[in-house]
Amino acid sequence: MAEKKKVVLSGMQPTGMLHLGNYEGALKNWVQLQNTGKYEMYFCIVDWHALTTAYEDTSDLVEKIYQITADYIAAGLDPKKVAIFVQSSVKQHAELHLLLSMFVPISWLERVPSYKEKVETLGLDSYGFLGYPLLQTADIIVYRANGVPVGKDQLPHLELAREVVRRFNFLYGEVFPEPEAILSEAPYIPGNDKRKMSKSYDNHICMGDSVDKIQKRVMSYYTDETKIYKGDPGHPQKCPVFALLKIYAPQETEKIVLDCTTGNPQWGCVK
Amino acid sequence: MAEKKKVVLSGMQPTGMLHLGNYEGALKNWVQLQNTGKYEMYFCIVDWHALTTAYEDTSDLVEKIYQITADYIAAGLDPKKVAIFVQSSVKQHAELHLLLSMFVPISWLERVPSYKEKVETLGLDSYGFLGYPLLQTADIIVYRANGVPVGKDQLPHLELAREVVRRFNFLYGEVFPEPEAILSEAPYIPGNDKRKMSKSYDNHICMGDSVDKIQKRVMSYYTDETKIYKGDPGHPQKCPVFALLKIYAPQETEKIVLDCTTGNPQWGCVK
Repeated sequence: MAEKKKVVLSGMQPTGMLHLGNYEGALKNWVQLQNTGKYEMYFCIVDWHALTTAYEDTSDLVEKIYQITADYIAAGLDPKKVAIFVQSSVKQHAELHLLLSMFVPISWLERVPSYKEKVETLGLDSYGFLGYPLLQTADIIVYRANGVPVGKDQLPHLELAREVVRRFNFLYGEVFPEPEAILSEAPYIPGNDKRKMSKSYDNHICMGDSVDKIQKRVMSYYTDETKIYKGDPGHPQKCPVFALLKIYAPQETEKIVLDCTTGNPQWGCVK
Repeated sequence: MAEKKKVVLSGMQPTGMLHLGNYEGALKNWVQLQNTGKYEMYFCIVDWHALTTAYEDTSDLVEKIYQITADYIAAGLDPKKVAIFVQSSVKQHAELHLLLSMFVPISWLERVPSYKEKVETLGLDSYGFLGYPLLQTADIIVYRANGVPVGKDQLPHLELAREVVRRFNFLYGEVFPEPEAILSEAPYIPGNDKRKMSKSYDNHICMGDSVDKIQKRVMSYYTDETKIYKGDPGHPQKCPVFALLKIYAPQETEKIVLDCTTGNPQWGCVK
């Protein structure tokens, strides 16, 4: 009999169309894991989580769920190979979250770094926001997931999930496996203002943007601000556009580096 | 067309067999409301609530659910007229609780009197215990209940439910009615130690106890401790057994009062 495949789960909030940072940082890795054929995989669109910050206006939530689903599939997730689903359609996430809440001390949730940070910066004070990482725990363990592809910023949440699992198993017997992080190397994806690409900075390029829109956004990018005139030598490693070129046109980088760093007067700018 | 009946909901934790205090304080009133035929009624056995305090040992939870169901029916609730159901079988309670949690500030829950009291006396510190009255709110409003038969001690919880409803309706439009308390006069039911009858004091008589067991418990009751010898005049109003007699043998009280207060030497004790 074939060995049972390891279960992998990940998810994103339905923030609408995804950008290149989401793709390079997460989706691409998901697709690679999918294509190994080694895992039973669940990709969740966590609409309940979206409500922890955006409960006041939910008018475009359904539209955003469709958009992110399209991007999941556009990135290469294959509904024939993996499960793509909306969190709120599986009530057991809410049920397990409630059950876990009975034995999880408030202090475990208060000490999660992202909670402390967002309470201060966003002034969030709802009961549900405090319970956010516990709902995330339920999302993961309800499928008895063994692995969770996450970014480093999510590691404290996963550590909480592991702690909750240990307590559950101690109280009620071995039911859930402790989920492990699947970390991957993600390239740095800058936005047009040189900061990390992010919707909240409005410095991003969406996977689903039109060619026109992408061209306009690329033309608005910072490049190397120390290269003022044609003929000045530039510094590709400091140039946000070059960072994108390394990923999307690697065959051209050698010539660009040469032209830029030597200040070839025939060559103006990477854009 | 007939006017839509008002919806009434109440519930109890499955603590096992109910005692006379539960019957006189709540069940009897429920049955009276049922028998008016005026209401659409839901009686819930709130097993998830039981986990807020008793999450460690759940081995007898199912048995206790059966016991309380038997007592509901023994008291006169009629499954043909009202809905009797177990909370955990309706996942929408957990779902609505989660949705409400998104916009309810932690401070609203922290200031509920029973929370502050139990944190101090029982040392409870779980996330779920803090959310207890919010789950209660979900229990009530998920059926759009208009009325909730409660004891006075539950009024702060109902006030929270009303506050949550107002906020929900403000954010998302008029969805839920504000539930109102249905208060009833309940006689004082003492236990064998003169304190209020309660399982936690082990001073109670269960609705389902055998005649033998009831007899033994009644014989263990305090009576009037100032009436020491036959012939001493007694004080029926201070006697816990007399309090029960007023309810269960009202036709005998006149003679007992006479014999007791006059210190009739032929008459020893109410027991």
